[in-house]
Amino acid sequence: MDMKPERIAFLGLGAMGRTLARTLLEAGREVTVWNRTPGKAGDLVARGAREASDPGEAIDAGDLTVACLLDDASVRETLAPVLRELSGGPLVNLTSGSVRQARELARWLDGHGVRFLAGGILAVPQTVGTEAASVLYSGPRDLFDRVAPVLSPVGRPHWVGEDPGFASLYDMAALSGMYGMSAGADHAVALVHAEGGDVEAFKRDVLRPWMERMLPIIAGEADVSVSVPEEYNAAMQATGLENMISTSEEAGVPAELSGHLRASLWRMRRAIAAG
Amino acid sequence: MDMKPERIAFLGLGAMGRTLARTLLEAGREVTVWNRTPGKAGDLVARGAREASDPGEAIDAGDLTVACLLDDASVRETLAPVLRELSGGPLVNLTSGSVRQARELARWLDGHGVRFLAGGILAVPQTVGTEAASVLYSGPRDLFDRVAPVLSPVGRPHWVGEDPGFASLYDMAALSGMYGMSAGADHAVALVHAEGGDVEAFKRDVLRPWMERMLPIIAGEADVSVSVPEEYNAAMQATGLENMISTSEEAGVPAELSGHLRASLWRMRRAIAAG
Ligand SMILES: NC(=O)c1ccc[n+]([C@@H]2O[C@H](COP(=O)([O-])OP(=O)(O)OC[C@H]3O[C@@H](n4cnc5c(N)ncnc54)[C@H](OP(=O)(O)O)[C@@H]3O)[C@@H](O)[C@H]2O)c1
Ligand SMILES: NC(=O)c1ccc[n+]([C@@H]2O[C@H](COP(=O)([O-])OP(=O)(O)OC[C@H]3O[C@@H](n4cnc5c(N)ncnc54)[C@H](OP(=O)(O)O)[C@@H]3O)[C@@H](O)[C@H]2O)c1
Repeated sequence: MDMKPERIAFLGLGAMGRTLARTLLEAGREVTVWNRTPGKAGDLVARGAREASDPGEAIDAGDLTVACLLDDASVRETLAPVLRELSGGPLVNLTSGSVRQARELARWLDGHGVRFLAGGILAVPQTVGTEAASVLYSGPRDLFDRVAPVLSPVGRPHWVGEDPGFASLYDMAALSGMYGMSAGADHAVALVHAEGGDVEAFKRDVLRPWMERMLPIIAGEADVSVSVPEEYNAAMQATGLENMISTSEEAGVPAELSGHLRASLWRMRRAIAAG
Repeated sequence: MDMKPERIAFLGLGAMGRTLARTLLEAGREVTVWNRTPGKAGDLVARGAREASDPGEAIDAGDLTVACLLDDASVRETLAPVLRELSGGPLVNLTSGSVRQARELARWLDGHGVRFLAGGILAVPQTVGTEAASVLYSGPRDLFDRVAPVLSPVGRPHWVGEDPGFASLYDMAALSGMYGMSAGADHAVALVHAEGGDVEAFKRDVLRPWMERMLPIIAGEADVSVSVPEEYNAAMQATGLENMISTSEEAGVPAELSGHLRASLWRMRRAIAAG
């Protein structure tokens, strides 16, 4: 393998894979693509990609292989027949999966002499290649150092540790944080709508500025313990949460949307019980 | 009443009330304070406040009355005996309560000739008087225009409509958005902790920057409909959410903390069902 692998074998041309491959091509990388179902590489070939007819052919044409498939099972199914080819250069897996799956995949590949870096894409296709995208990697640090400059065009590379499960862990945890924001914002909007408020004005003038101000505090204070800061009136906050839940039920907002409030209330009650 | 009332009668010296009163004093307002339980005004008197021995005496000494008590019941109990005194100048209620309570309070006060502005404090005592604080008001616009400059030192005044319930509605909805962020961040941290990750590095390098990047998108797109943008693969997102829920259960994170994920999953499934 070259010290600076720039020839990339790219496996998987779904919504995300296609976008990643196009972004790498636009950044001047040499890309050979493969997809299980043929006929998805047209616009990439027009931008200079080579198309391989099977994974082994793609891998042989690259110094580095990137997989972005559906799930862990599709990665194993695709790679099992080409483990020998893969031992020639490192594999970066950008397919989402569980922490356990990533750790087991690393063990399996290691057993076959394949150098492996696990990845997690913190982006959607629309933000790939922009400032808003980052990609988490975990596995051997030296491998990250060699791979990061090659893949940096798709999103800021960020190494999160040696444990191959950590890219997936941090990815999933960050997504969970995002889903919380989203659950909160959706419930907020449903409540304002149900009581006849002005949803657009609320989002623009109240919700977004308020969440922006609180985010640094909340992300900073998030904690696994149930301790609460002094001066913090947990009993009052719990009452406030109960009011919010009952008010939104009275307003006809589906109870399912209050899941974030019930989670917060549960935590608050534990804090109160812990004193 | 003067055109620019600057003499404030302040009812309620709990954690929030005391902080508001002190901030107004520091901004040069003339403040007369009252609290049900005596002995809470010491440091305020040292900063120039007058202390009244009953609500009526406080109200008579102000051009404007501000109440910051526990809940709606305590506001009614405190004001019922002094409705005549209150008809001399406007009342601003900064006590939290439900939308319905605020509307009924407005009707009750109106029936007694009391000019009334409802308020909701988007702040905690620590942020009162800083850039991070804002106060939502609803009720007559002309009353807001007269009152806002007087009370602006405690937090940016923001009028959200004539409906006296709207200050409470928008306040509660914004808090719900914040609790969503908080539920998401707490769950994220619990997950990283449970799998042996580096919680502080995760919060600083991954969670906060990612949530900051996503917030404008999420606050902008929050919607009461179940429609999803084109190109959005709701089925894959739903699978991702199911994975996150089962991964956190496997990791030993209490199921109660996944409420925001279940809320998001419920919404996603409705979107899929709606096509
Ligand atoms: N889209 C996003 O917003 C996003 C964001 C972050 C992470 N991700 C992750 O990125 C990965 C890809 O996402 P996507 O949006 O590109 O998904 P997608 O549009 O559904 O594409 C799935 C890809 O996997 C291939 N595939 C499925 N089963 C296979 C198998 N058994 N063998 C070989 N190939 C198989 C498909 O090939 P065919 O064309 O032959 O079906 C297709 O190329 C997923 O793990 C996803 O979680 C996506
Ligand atoms: N603290 C916050 O972070 C925060 C943030 C936003 C909004 N708020 C809202 O601000 C309001 C006050 O909060 P706080 O933190 O100051 O609460 P607090 O520390 O519990 O103080 C409650 C106040 O209400 C008074 N009170 C209770 N029952 C009464 C009654 N029946 N008659 C007369 N006075 C009575 C108490 O007087 P005694 O001293 O005699 O008990 C005390 O002054 C609440 O509605 C709260 O939801 C608070």
